[in-house]
Amino acid sequence: MPEQTLTWLDGEPAQALPLPDRGLAFGDGLFETLLLRRGVPLFADRHLHRLKLGLDALNFPPVLETARRHLEEASQAIAASGWLWAALRVTVTRGSGPRGYAPPPDAQPRVLVEVTEISRDCALMAPAVTLGVADIGLPAQPALAGLKHLNRLEQVLAAEQAQREGFEEMLLLDAMSGAATCVTAGNLFAVIDGQLVTPKLADCGVAGTRRRLVLDRWAPALGFTVPEVRLPPGQLEHASEVFYTNALYGLRPVASLGVVRWAEHPVCTALFEQYLEDLA
Amino acid sequence: MPEQTLTWLDGEPAQALPLPDRGLAFGDGLFETLLLRRGVPLFADRHLHRLKLGLDALNFPPVLETARRHLEEASQAIAASGWLWAALRVTVTRGSGPRGYAPPPDAQPRVLVEVTEISRDCALMAPAVTLGVADIGLPAQPALAGLKHLNRLEQVLAAEQAQREGFEEMLLLDAMSGAATCVTAGNLFAVIDGQLVTPKLADCGVAGTRRRLVLDRWAPALGFTVPEVRLPPGQLEHASEVFYTNALYGLRPVASLGVVRWAEHPVCTALFEQYLEDLA
Repeated sequence: MPEQTLTWLDGEPAQALPLPDRGLAFGDGLFETLLLRRGVPLFADRHLHRLKLGLDALNFPPVLETARRHLEEASQAIAASGWLWAALRVTVTRGSGPRGYAPPPDAQPRVLVEVTEISRDCALMAPAVTLGVADIGLPAQPALAGLKHLNRLEQVLAAEQAQREGFEEMLLLDAMSGAATCVTAGNLFAVIDGQLVTPKLADCGVAGTRRRLVLDRWAPALGFTVPEVRLPPGQLEHASEVFYTNALYGLRPVASLGVVRWAEHPVCTALFEQYLEDLA
Repeated sequence: MPEQTLTWLDGEPAQALPLPDRGLAFGDGLFETLLLRRGVPLFADRHLHRLKLGLDALNFPPVLETARRHLEEASQAIAASGWLWAALRVTVTRGSGPRGYAPPPDAQPRVLVEVTEISRDCALMAPAVTLGVADIGLPAQPALAGLKHLNRLEQVLAAEQAQREGFEEMLLLDAMSGAATCVTAGNLFAVIDGQLVTPKLADCGVAGTRRRLVLDRWAPALGFTVPEVRLPPGQLEHASEVFYTNALYGLRPVASLGVVRWAEHPVCTALFEQYLEDLA
């Protein structure tokens, strides 16, 4: 059954994006992917906070409150639709403009909201994934690190490699240092010598909302503090468990990386319980 | 007078892009900007060659011949329109697909052609520009270096800074080495101790069609060989002239960088004559 998606542009049902658009032309924009439960966006404030950081970094005109309103209107439509779980993507572009890289001084950003039903029960922890290692590295770009902008070719190429090689997720390494940074669609965690750690994201990677919740709430509730570290991939082989976080799965365990297999994921499972309590 | 643009999508006149589209979602695509004279695309084979390199690097399904055909059809329409000079942008995206980074195995790329009239006479060398230095560096990404893909936030932010600071163009430095790499919309050349040089593009930057023509044809015709070098920005201050190349200007001199001024541009002027001979 093909996925069903509902789409709104600037608050109106839409099937197309007017041209030209700088989001298409240059990736001049940002996005967020939120999990909806019965049409209620989960941890929306944390997504809007990251969106605000991105809008500021790209010097967008004020559009955050408009994006929040369109997100809420779309969520209400989904609440009426009967979908239990859904993925809501909100994309903000700098809108149209004349030819060339320079943003127009009077830019009028566009807000695109796309909602897709999710058929799995997101309140159940998803099965552990096989993890490959991406050939393409993440370039160091401190000015954009942590933000969820529209320039995502590294993730696309890593996901394409995953399909080709039969992996469910891919580990992305910092191209400069070689350190493990994240997976294609999520943030990485590992338990090494009993210590829960996650990679630093100073130079590259997206600062995930669920990563922040693990650091601030769910891990402390279990007695963990979580250092942000430089994590050479060789250290992952000595981990007692590895998992990743994102908005749609919450937390998801890793079953294997190279020759290493992990059958049990007690820390990931306990954190998932914390996550569910937060949802309740 | 606002710019007039004619737009075709997959060969048909269009005002909008169907959603979803991976070019918008992730910058999953490529583009070329060609100069048209009386509707004839100049150096089209070199643009199509670079497009092919990009399509191969991103593992796109075969679409090059389709792009060539739509480019030619649009050019013929412009020939009939009476525009003397025009900029033709061809954008190839991986088309639609389900949610997520992974490209669909049956991706059907889209070809967008946008043509905008140019009012200036492109057969005249344009006035020299003031050059600032971009705060944002170019990250090292050897897997994508040289290609003209849709992930262009560094150029957007540099162009935005240029507007804010009152420069006409911006110098972009390699974030890792600090070397001068290119300008926002073109490739850099300098004459230092009588030697014409241009930055190496192994790690970042776009390998311009006019850059390649300078190296292969126009500079040799003047007796220059052009080493591709690592070019610390401090060396530019000792240059006797600096200029840049792109498809729309051909070659364009630089008037100033920091406290340094260049009043004369004999090498750029001589190369521009070579360029004009090639156009004839």
